[in-house]
Amino acid sequence: MSNFAIVVHGGAGTITPDLYTAEIEKGIRDTLFEAVEAGYFLLREGEVAVNVVSHVVMVLENSPFFNAGKGSVFTNDGTHEMEAAIMNGANLDAGAACAVKNVRNPIVLARKILEKSGHVYLHGKGAEEFGRLYHVAFEPEEYFFDQFRYDEWRKIKASNTYRLDHSKDNAKKFGTVGAVALDIHGNVAAATSTGGMTNKKHGRIGDSSIIGAGTYANNATCAVSCTGHGEPFLRAVSAYDISCLMEYKGLSLEDAANYLIHEKMKQDHLQGEGGLIAIDHQGNIAITFNTVGMYRGYRRSGEKEHIALYKANVPA
Amino acid sequence: MSNFAIVVHGGAGTITPDLYTAEIEKGIRDTLFEAVEAGYFLLREGEVAVNVVSHVVMVLENSPFFNAGKGSVFTNDGTHEMEAAIMNGANLDAGAACAVKNVRNPIVLARKILEKSGHVYLHGKGAEEFGRLYHVAFEPEEYFFDQFRYDEWRKIKASNTYRLDHSKDNAKKFGTVGAVALDIHGNVAAATSTGGMTNKKHGRIGDSSIIGAGTYANNATCAVSCTGHGEPFLRAVSAYDISCLMEYKGLSLEDAANYLIHEKMKQDHLQGEGGLIAIDHQGNIAITFNTVGMYRGYRRSGEKEHIALYKANVPA
Repeated sequence: MSNFAIVVHGGAGTITPDLYTAEIEKGIRDTLFEAVEAGYFLLREGEVAVNVVSHVVMVLENSPFFNAGKGSVFTNDGTHEMEAAIMNGANLDAGAACAVKNVRNPIVLARKILEKSGHVYLHGKGAEEFGRLYHVAFEPEEYFFDQFRYDEWRKIKASNTYRLDHSKDNAKKFGTVGAVALDIHGNVAAATSTGGMTNKKHGRIGDSSIIGAGTYANNATCAVSCTGHGEPFLRAVSAYDISCLMEYKGLSLEDAANYLIHEKMKQDHLQGEGGLIAIDHQGNIAITFNTVGMYRGYRRSGEKEHIALYKANVPA
Repeated sequence: MSNFAIVVHGGAGTITPDLYTAEIEKGIRDTLFEAVEAGYFLLREGEVAVNVVSHVVMVLENSPFFNAGKGSVFTNDGTHEMEAAIMNGANLDAGAACAVKNVRNPIVLARKILEKSGHVYLHGKGAEEFGRLYHVAFEPEEYFFDQFRYDEWRKIKASNTYRLDHSKDNAKKFGTVGAVALDIHGNVAAATSTGGMTNKKHGRIGDSSIIGAGTYANNATCAVSCTGHGEPFLRAVSAYDISCLMEYKGLSLEDAANYLIHEKMKQDHLQGEGGLIAIDHQGNIAITFNTVGMYRGYRRSGEKEHIALYKANVPA
């Protein structure tokens, strides 16, 4: 059997066991498991990486446990503005959308942009119009509603502050989902999707939908999906940095990920909290974060799946 | 006198002498000269690079000869949607805006986002609202009107096609303006601004306002502003690529720019037409393009200014 693997994340942050009821923790684990298994079986059937990461991120978007698609956080004006990106390492084709509303699966829209638009990056109403031309599914506002995130938004709505997706007061959670995969043909791909920051305004865009920052894939090196405080990840051009550290400096995937997350991101002028998942063309995996925890899972060809939420239980 | 320098561009493309009347060519040259001189005198007075590139790009935005600010191309629905980005190499601070209308100087808005927003990237109406809070100047649609670009748009408005800013039928012009500078304190900075593609729709965003793609600056390496077909420049994460080739592979600025523009961009899966201007922390300059011409100019401390439009007269 050829070497293949799938890695997923559902965000990083102050993720500790005391934050969750047993029921919620089970829901999160089950969804990560479902996403990993879906990716694994597609890869085993010979599906190409770009199709696999698109499907896997769709599974995570469809779950209310994660801040992407259904369950996205609320903006300052009480709606949901989502962003997503996908990149195919085989040919550097990429598609991304930001500031879209009512799109059931932003990653499906990003995928259509990659395939059909002749462009890479579309935003707002124009991106939605493009999606309608290609029969991307739309949903009413209620579909995206999540009581917990609504309550969080109501608490800070009148203030001028914005917030990361919170699990609890004083507990930070960077709400993003992502997947990277290596297929049996030797291709890698990456996909990322998010609802952004609670109470965000002024049309803020994070790193998730920026090719090079939150998402990057290249068969010559690796595929990367980031999660964390978007601004430092943007300024560090994080996902492409991993690729360059491998291609130009000869670092291993693991060393590149450790350097970015544990050294560069801790520099005074960046102070970037978060993490990333990455896979290289040989099937090496990196799951690296400088936060307390990260929702994550992976499965390699011929091995069983690994799912983890907390630091104590690092699976990679 | 300490080493300092300013480099500007006004876009690359099929720029040949037969396209212009003597009057238009003089207008383009005079504006490039004005921009270079403005930057030079500010730098000589000790102004920091991030302020200089912001001011220089404002001069270019204010000219109807370039597709940025006044004179921006028309979108499919007959308006102007502009984007801009700025980055400070001293601390990697960055600000960018896309899909903004009626903003007199998008680069000034990007600068305010860098300074005041706590974010990097804002879009659309939210970005405009933010600009109003900080007294950024707005103008009615008529301000941005240019008869030549209006006529170009009218020709293709009913079609489903979009176009680069054209100088003439069959002559491609990538309409962007940009500036990079090294100040006497050793800081570099980059700024880029554009009106995008004629008749663009679906909210297309190019590379200009993407940190890492069209714009990047880092005192440890260089400052870069790109111009060209946005999509391949986005997929190649072009501006940050120059920085990585220097930092991780040890290439000189010139070798890095030549590799990106004349080798990587010519690969089958990219086919990226365009160019870039760049400056490193020692004052080395690169002005590199794979198109027939590029509007460009520069001036180094203690030297006289160089202005050029066509390939035959490469100044660097």
